[in-house]
Amino acid sequence: MKAIIVGVGLIGGSMARDLRCKYPEVSIYGADATATHLEEAIRLGLIDGIAESKDFSEADIVVVSIPVDAIVLELPKLLDVIGDDTLVIDAGSTKSEICSIVEDHPKRRNFLACHPIAGTEFSGPSAAVSELFAGKTNIICEVEKTAFKLQERALSVFSSLGMRIRYMNPEAHDRHIAYVSHLSHISSFMLGKTVIEKEKNERDIFDMAGSGFESTVRLAKSSPAMWTPIFEQNKDNVVETLEEYIQNLEAFKQKLIDDNFEGIYEEMDSTNKIKSILKGIPQNNKDR
Amino acid sequence: MKAIIVGVGLIGGSMARDLRCKYPEVSIYGADATATHLEEAIRLGLIDGIAESKDFSEADIVVVSIPVDAIVLELPKLLDVIGDDTLVIDAGSTKSEICSIVEDHPKRRNFLACHPIAGTEFSGPSAAVSELFAGKTNIICEVEKTAFKLQERALSVFSSLGMRIRYMNPEAHDRHIAYVSHLSHISSFMLGKTVIEKEKNERDIFDMAGSGFESTVRLAKSSPAMWTPIFEQNKDNVVETLEEYIQNLEAFKQKLIDDNFEGIYEEMDSTNKIKSILKGIPQNNKDR
Repeated sequence: MKAIIVGVGLIGGSMARDLRCKYPEVSIYGADATATHLEEAIRLGLIDGIAESKDFSEADIVVVSIPVDAIVLELPKLLDVIGDDTLVIDAGSTKSEICSIVEDHPKRRNFLACHPIAGTEFSGPSAAVSELFAGKTNIICEVEKTAFKLQERALSVFSSLGMRIRYMNPEAHDRHIAYVSHLSHISSFMLGKTVIEKEKNERDIFDMAGSGFESTVRLAKSSPAMWTPIFEQNKDNVVETLEEYIQNLEAFKQKLIDDNFEGIYEEMDSTNKIKSILKGIPQNNKDR
Repeated sequence: MKAIIVGVGLIGGSMARDLRCKYPEVSIYGADATATHLEEAIRLGLIDGIAESKDFSEADIVVVSIPVDAIVLELPKLLDVIGDDTLVIDAGSTKSEICSIVEDHPKRRNFLACHPIAGTEFSGPSAAVSELFAGKTNIICEVEKTAFKLQERALSVFSSLGMRIRYMNPEAHDRHIAYVSHLSHISSFMLGKTVIEKEKNERDIFDMAGSGFESTVRLAKSSPAMWTPIFEQNKDNVVETLEEYIQNLEAFKQKLIDDNFEGIYEEMDSTNKIKSILKGIPQNNKDR
């Protein structure tokens, strides 16, 4: 198997680690806008070398794991140069604009639109880890637009990586992912900002922060270069989720102001059912 | 050593586990408004039995680990019945009202106001774990109002549990803890609520949730019975932090609406420095 990783960061690099483990005979080549990332990826053994033009026409699989604004620019060009039997998958956190940009591409059937729900708040080749995708969900959009043989190849790779598959249309993906992922990132970034602003002259105060604070602001370490274009492409859905979130915070604040602590209790009590919902999150099934 | 744990839940039970480990000769008695908690605590070996009135007058240390509204009610009564040489510590997440309620109590010098910054989102005797306090910060308020000999006893216990000590006045504690703890809980509860409301008819959607969502809503599993009185006692500070948080979310939303993605990038980029701040959180120092 010949694989090309376009974007040798957290996702692409982790994919490379797993491919190498599950397909010992694989040759993996890399492409990246940042030359030092390629050097690092070679040094870390993630890739065997830098992808040349002939590699794209010969590749069995091309993994496009770059920010979503770059996917929209690069994916059509990639489809132009791949071979007739090459499968291209992406890992973008938005799906509508990406599916739309290649809708009429002559090689549309070589592309499978994917969103593996896996990651950490870190980025770059050194953030790549083995087994990142094991037990995680991979959302596939517009599966019917991909050649059957290449669907099979993709599913075989995902299966070897231990992923669960869910099929969804791009619009539904973008609407729901705004709630369960994009909103979490904004809530975390703004929580971090609020505390940093307030406590800027009192760094000692962070001695008072415990694991709860750390958990809620963890995502505020995420890469702005990755997340800005996600929010841009999913703007309408994200604005809607933010409005609902702000309304809920305002209502909670008003209950505090009104001394309606019975209402405050009920708000929290009814939200406690998140416990059973979190148990349903794939990666938690194993150990709970 | 004779110890009494008033409230044999997560904090009190964990304290009991550590006391038993560090002071093998200790006798530990429990008190709790919930009879089944006492039975469970005995079965789990957290306590040796149920505290009787004579135990309070003989105890070397009484740990008051109950919701902050119950502390305000019970602490003066406890001070009434303890011995002259008994140390009473609390573990409340607010400090002003608690310190105020015992200000003029004849046994004020037997009490040390504490807030160990440790815990999980779970509660009850079964949530108690060993070493919960190791490497964590314990905030002590109004230390000067406690008898010197009893300060020494408390510090010796905290030291054996591996805690770092910080001294602070109750008002400063409540102001800062609103930012680094209370706000995180509200942000998490309201995030959980927003997503549950939206997705109530589509439970499958939680298949799409990853570890990022889980991290930001973890605190929404917390106990409403514990948190409602915390928000009530610290209402003014909490409302202020909520207002600042909502303003930041509104400004972020407006930047999205205005297509000001450079501004969105800058917001996230400047908040990324939370990385270095999180490194400063005590429990993270060990492994980073």
